[in-house]
Amino acid sequence: MKTNPGRFFEDLRLGQTIRHATPRTLTAADAALYTALYGSRFAVQSSDAFAQNAGHPRSPLDDWLVFHVVFGKTVPDVSLNAVANLGYADGRFLKPVYPGATLSSVSEVIGLRESSNRQTGVVYVRSTGFDETGEPVLAYCRWVLVRKRDATAVVAEERTPDLPAAVEPAALGAACPPIGAYDAELGGSPHLWGDYRAGERIDHVDGVTVEEAEHQLATRLYQNTAKVHFDAHAAAGGRFGKRLVYGGHVISLARALSFNGLANAFHVAAINGGRHVAPLFAGDTVYAWSEVLRTAEIPGRSDVGALRIRTVATKNRPCADFPDRAGDGYDPSVILDLDYWALMPR
Amino acid sequence: MKTNPGRFFEDLRLGQTIRHATPRTLTAADAALYTALYGSRFAVQSSDAFAQNAGHPRSPLDDWLVFHVVFGKTVPDVSLNAVANLGYADGRFLKPVYPGATLSSVSEVIGLRESSNRQTGVVYVRSTGFDETGEPVLAYCRWVLVRKRDATAVVAEERTPDLPAAVEPAALGAACPPIGAYDAELGGSPHLWGDYRAGERIDHVDGVTVEEAEHQLATRLYQNTAKVHFDAHAAAGGRFGKRLVYGGHVISLARALSFNGLANAFHVAAINGGRHVAPLFAGDTVYAWSEVLRTAEIPGRSDVGALRIRTVATKNRPCADFPDRAGDGYDPSVILDLDYWALMPR
Amino acid sequence: MKTNPGRFFEDLRLGQTIRHATPRTLTAADAALYTALYGSRFAVQSSDAFAQNAGHPRSPLDDWLVFHVVFGKTVPDVSLNAVANLGYADGRFLKPVYPGATLSSVSEVIGLRESSNRQTGVVYVRSTGFDETGEPVLAYCRWVLVRKRDATAVVAEERTPDLPAAVEPAALGAACPPIGAYDAELGGSPHLWGDYRAGERIDHVDGVTVEEAEHQLATRLYQNTAKVHFDAHAAAGGRFGKRLVYGGHVISLARALSFNGLANAFHVAAINGGRHVAPLFAGDTVYAWSEVLRTAEIPGRSDVGALRIRTVATKNRPCADFPDRAGDGYDPSVILDLDYWALMPR
Repeated sequence: MKTNPGRFFEDLRLGQTIRHATPRTLTAADAALYTALYGSRFAVQSSDAFAQNAGHPRSPLDDWLVFHVVFGKTVPDVSLNAVANLGYADGRFLKPVYPGATLSSVSEVIGLRESSNRQTGVVYVRSTGFDETGEPVLAYCRWVLVRKRDATAVVAEERTPDLPAAVEPAALGAACPPIGAYDAELGGSPHLWGDYRAGERIDHVDGVTVEEAEHQLATRLYQNTAKVHFDAHAAAGGRFGKRLVYGGHVISLARALSFNGLANAFHVAAINGGRHVAPLFAGDTVYAWSEVLRTAEIPGRSDVGALRIRTVATKNRPCADFPDRAGDGYDPSVILDLDYWALMPR
Repeated sequence: MKTNPGRFFEDLRLGQTIRHATPRTLTAADAALYTALYGSRFAVQSSDAFAQNAGHPRSPLDDWLVFHVVFGKTVPDVSLNAVANLGYADGRFLKPVYPGATLSSVSEVIGLRESSNRQTGVVYVRSTGFDETGEPVLAYCRWVLVRKRDATAVVAEERTPDLPAAVEPAALGAACPPIGAYDAELGGSPHLWGDYRAGERIDHVDGVTVEEAEHQLATRLYQNTAKVHFDAHAAAGGRFGKRLVYGGHVISLARALSFNGLANAFHVAAINGGRHVAPLFAGDTVYAWSEVLRTAEIPGRSDVGALRIRTVATKNRPCADFPDRAGDGYDPSVILDLDYWALMPR
Repeated sequence: MKTNPGRFFEDLRLGQTIRHATPRTLTAADAALYTALYGSRFAVQSSDAFAQNAGHPRSPLDDWLVFHVVFGKTVPDVSLNAVANLGYADGRFLKPVYPGATLSSVSEVIGLRESSNRQTGVVYVRSTGFDETGEPVLAYCRWVLVRKRDATAVVAEERTPDLPAAVEPAALGAACPPIGAYDAELGGSPHLWGDYRAGERIDHVDGVTVEEAEHQLATRLYQNTAKVHFDAHAAAGGRFGKRLVYGGHVISLARALSFNGLANAFHVAAINGGRHVAPLFAGDTVYAWSEVLRTAEIPGRSDVGALRIRTVATKNRPCADFPDRAGDGYDPSVILDLDYWALMPR
């Protein structure tokens, strides 16, 4: 068969390495499309002149754009037969990515755990994005629940990997050159790193309604082919009856909304964890709020500090009262619970 | 509070200068997106080779794209609490903008006039867009009706600025280098400046239906954050029950439609005035017609002449019979009444 | 009249040459938008690094993007008054097109045949796209049914041109420089030219639902102004009651879907024929399947071979059972029947 059936749980082996197809050269066009899709306003990624003052040769590409492109390549090989995307950990941005870079992805299977009903299993992969020089620009772990082709198939070896609860501050400066002048007024807020405190919560106020065309354009831009995002005809007979929005689209929407309150958090340096708590559909309106979990100095860096931020996104419910976990689960409006490190000038 | 509440009427002072956040580098990608959003076909902005023959080093960015980007930056500071965008005057394009330029905006408060009910007031600003060299590329005035936070607040000083009814022809060549060869056949029409007469009316014939995804993509591309364009959940409880299309989106649609009849009007040189007469919603179809108000020579320029054009856009009503003012107001189909100068080869 | 009424059947003459308006410079932004619109994953067009290994100075623009841009320019002059787009033949890609190229189009009328009812006639044109150096990049024939302005008008001379059933293999290498290293794993499939056999059929499995905003963005990107794609208000009173999706959009969707099964068919070298069997509307889901009609060596080329492929696209019907011609017509789900040559590494 010449078409790709995707891998099933029993097709994967611990330690297996998969080189994913379709390297992609990213350009200023991807940055412009990213702006059109999310309305992001972080000045370092928006202005070459601002970025040059802040230590870059030109505007780097948005960190989440890099993530989505690296992630998208893994889909045909890792999650074509996935039931659910369960989580992320140990995501580290390792090198700034500028327009002109060509990204490719490689994944290593670092964990396998069959479900008790033997119909599915959890696959843990560490995916790494490389640029055209062969240097890594991003590494992250994710785990997904993948169907078995044959429930009776025996899995060779299982292991649940040991993943850190959070990335250490010492690792956070890798993709951030020393910043020079940072003009906070052009940045959009007078508040810098020293103005934030652990425990502080910020309602990002604004909401954005998602259209089918928007998430489809975005997800295709990332060459992510997961059919649940694109095929309304098949979805009509499925669990939700309609197309699902790519979870990464929600992350980027929430990040763009977070500008209102975190305008100078110009760089996402690491992903500690994340859960897509509930699905998002076109027509829904996304809101977000954030909590500062921790403030940290970065060893050797007096120019920037790190904020460990938890951003919660909801649908169809403004976040003035911070909808959150509730009972064993979450408030029904919550769709995303993301834990990451962002850098801010000191 | 770390989020931006926007300025209310009483927060503004005559002479106050506001440096707006998030400079933005525009590239050929913005030009391509602009083409995809509006279908503009003016040859100077479409082809580097054509533009070079016409005196440019390469295709300049569309004048309205420059306007929207400069405008977008002013929204969080000037019109976040606006009730209505009332008008424009004295808009002048001062320098051609090419891909690679980084634009930033500064506004000066040039007028304040409290409403008699003391709930709102009219704010007049002159906004100027600068490129990365610090040179101005566009200046224009607009006035908006802005809410007061506190109806009893006293306004320090009021003034209604004296704004010109139209920009003088001598100012119209600033962003248009001397054109060399101009190939009217490739330009799309045999009609040049000398073929147009004051009083002439042109139905632009074609119509274009607007989708939510389109105006949202456009408005985000301009980093314009006015929530009325994006938040269907909040809009459901508002005056119109749905999202409003950014008025500048209508201007760009009308300008693109005007190619059919004004194909060689390759450069918008000035904005004399403009009113967003009625709101546009997704699902509506936009049509347009134009009247030549005046033809003018530009002092010192034998290569190009100016047409003062009034373009009227409608929704859901073709313009063969030129829907216009009616009684004290307008025909109910009219959504835009725009007065501008365009240049055309002689 | 200053607006373009389009040409009617009796306005055209055999041998007439039309230079179409609005040359356009294509950039990496058009490539990125093309990716966002279709999700194409062919590695040569996606990665500069991959393309360089495969003999190009950088990624060439997608062949169908080039086609759509060349085609779009012909619409205001050839098919503004068309009733139907009937077919294509003898399409040959003549030179690779890289970002930065400026394309313009010229059409020659090569056939005219009045309908027996004298209300319409079939117009055959050979359209050629040129780059800024004046070299042709693409030539193809198409024929359209065009209305007469006046049924009684007499047509000077009629002729049905003699068009080849298929392009000869010797002509297929013109836009494909000798490929060097080709990494099939990064290309997305282990299957190369020698693995395909005439008669082989491939279900491309995936489906994609089309939104109004998507096809409008695409069609405007190509500066194709055919009003049936854009004006819902006028369409409401027309034959279908709604906007029609541009047929070329369907071709690009089917081509992108065909990656799943034909991942290494990296270059469309020629168009042998094509029929838009039925209209596509927003909300429909497109599927596709292909049959290998013939495998051919290209004289003088040991690096690549050619596959003559027939791709059939359907709406709202998966293609596991290869919906095809039925009786005198087609299965009602079929919307496109396209016959082309693609190149694949040997």
